[in-house]
Amino acid sequence: MTVGQSVPATGSVGHRPPAIDIGVLGIAGVGLIGGSVAAAARARSIARRIIGFDPLHAEQAHRRGLIDAAADSLEQLSATADVIVLAQPPSIIADCLATVGAHLRPAAWCTDVGSTKARIAARARAELGAALSRFVPAHPIAGGEDSGPAAARADLFDGRRVIITPLPGSDDAVLQAGQDFWSGLGARVQRLGVEQHDAIFGAVSHLPHLLAFALAGALAERADAADLLAYAGAGLRDTTRIAGSDAALWADILLDNRAPTLAALAQFNQVLQRMAGAVQVEDRPALQAAIEAARQWRRRL
Amino acid sequence: MTVGQSVPATGSVGHRPPAIDIGVLGIAGVGLIGGSVAAAARARSIARRIIGFDPLHAEQAHRRGLIDAAADSLEQLSATADVIVLAQPPSIIADCLATVGAHLRPAAWCTDVGSTKARIAARARAELGAALSRFVPAHPIAGGEDSGPAAARADLFDGRRVIITPLPGSDDAVLQAGQDFWSGLGARVQRLGVEQHDAIFGAVSHLPHLLAFALAGALAERADAADLLAYAGAGLRDTTRIAGSDAALWADILLDNRAPTLAALAQFNQVLQRMAGAVQVEDRPALQAAIEAARQWRRRL
Repeated sequence: MTVGQSVPATGSVGHRPPAIDIGVLGIAGVGLIGGSVAAAARARSIARRIIGFDPLHAEQAHRRGLIDAAADSLEQLSATADVIVLAQPPSIIADCLATVGAHLRPAAWCTDVGSTKARIAARARAELGAALSRFVPAHPIAGGEDSGPAAARADLFDGRRVIITPLPGSDDAVLQAGQDFWSGLGARVQRLGVEQHDAIFGAVSHLPHLLAFALAGALAERADAADLLAYAGAGLRDTTRIAGSDAALWADILLDNRAPTLAALAQFNQVLQRMAGAVQVEDRPALQAAIEAARQWRRRL
Repeated sequence: MTVGQSVPATGSVGHRPPAIDIGVLGIAGVGLIGGSVAAAARARSIARRIIGFDPLHAEQAHRRGLIDAAADSLEQLSATADVIVLAQPPSIIADCLATVGAHLRPAAWCTDVGSTKARIAARARAELGAALSRFVPAHPIAGGEDSGPAAARADLFDGRRVIITPLPGSDDAVLQAGQDFWSGLGARVQRLGVEQHDAIFGAVSHLPHLLAFALAGALAERADAADLLAYAGAGLRDTTRIAGSDAALWADILLDNRAPTLAALAQFNQVLQRMAGAVQVEDRPALQAAIEAARQWRRRL
């Protein structure tokens, strides 16, 4: 499998970042990710005005100074903004595309933050119409187990990867603008194919989340669940940290990317059953070799 | 399930720690844990002389000033030391008991650091003879994915738990001396039954290690394993951190505590299959509820 080429970060030595000057930046969803887009855009002065649409969080985001004003509707946001960022869970992003496409201003373009890309791409092709060329599907590899505008940070994207997954019909100039935008927020931008993106993140992100949820969930169901809390060491704490993530968002991601995630799970289960079998029959050489192979790979991380 | 009572830490407010004055402290195995016992004992001046037996690490431990001298054999260490600490993997600890029992000086006693206690207890009952009353089975909840004397630290046990699992036949005064010793190294000491200990640590430590090994091992076997390294975020890094642990030690621990670990694995698999089933059939409410239950428990950690 070939990995997409890394795009040189703007702002690297000897390279002046392009001046980004967005009139109105419109952000749908101003929780952790959308709020951090707003904070980073403000800190780096890349937008003159920032508006947000978010029935749940807009007021808090406004109070915190992340956005200048709240839009009453997605239609209003779409008809007002020069650049739109859809910063919701993947299924909501998909549901917003038709509205954004119908109201997008002539020179405006749209990007998103969805952690899964195939289903959003399919909906974009079906519902964006002529606006498809002005959609830049993106996935910032940033986040955390805290959520909401209170967790937003201007440096959330600093040095983090943003993956752009171009679609057939994407406009080159718009893709470049999208890339400059995310670079302007501090990220290192890279392109991948949609299917390759979903296979990779099913393995390195969605499967680990599913396992962390299952581990914390299994311990929580034990009769001695409360006692276990007292004996947890750093190992369990690290292993289950991401199990503290937002439940609605992660149900959405796992459902949205279910085929690649379940494929990664099936392969994980084979390895787990092999290791558990070695424990069961006390095959020490096989168990130690399997652990050593895992250890070698992990040490390269 | 009732948890053993926490013993007030020596050194707490208004409580003078008992003065500990060990003539010769003998440590078998001077890697991360044994080396840290030596470093902590020296930093807190609780032993006049520290000797180590470790064919692999003794020279390095001596060069680093962790031990004053290396014993030529376990027999020599056992016949010389006033307090013996067996700081090896569990199966080696079990294999050392007969020798220690045969050579233990009249007023001397022995403790260990094994992460699993049932098999060591069985061997102790079978092989220690009269010395059984002077064995204090212990498990310090401290460690890390680095190993060897280079990773040893005088503060490794500061504020960490040490679980003591008394045996029928344990001498009360010796148990108290063992407790004072571990408290003197900075730890908070607590007592648990052997079986309860192994069930708890099978769930909170050995199962998470097995899962982290299986996850890193599964990713390492993929055709795109090298590419995946580039896309790993903080989530995968945390989830697999303990997969970097020493392979021989962890093969030993998993084999030694295999019944409780496999029981915890079976219960984990039920929860995982339930969550994966909800993903498969797109049962969003069931999936989200399961994640939320896991999240609530994790947030209490």
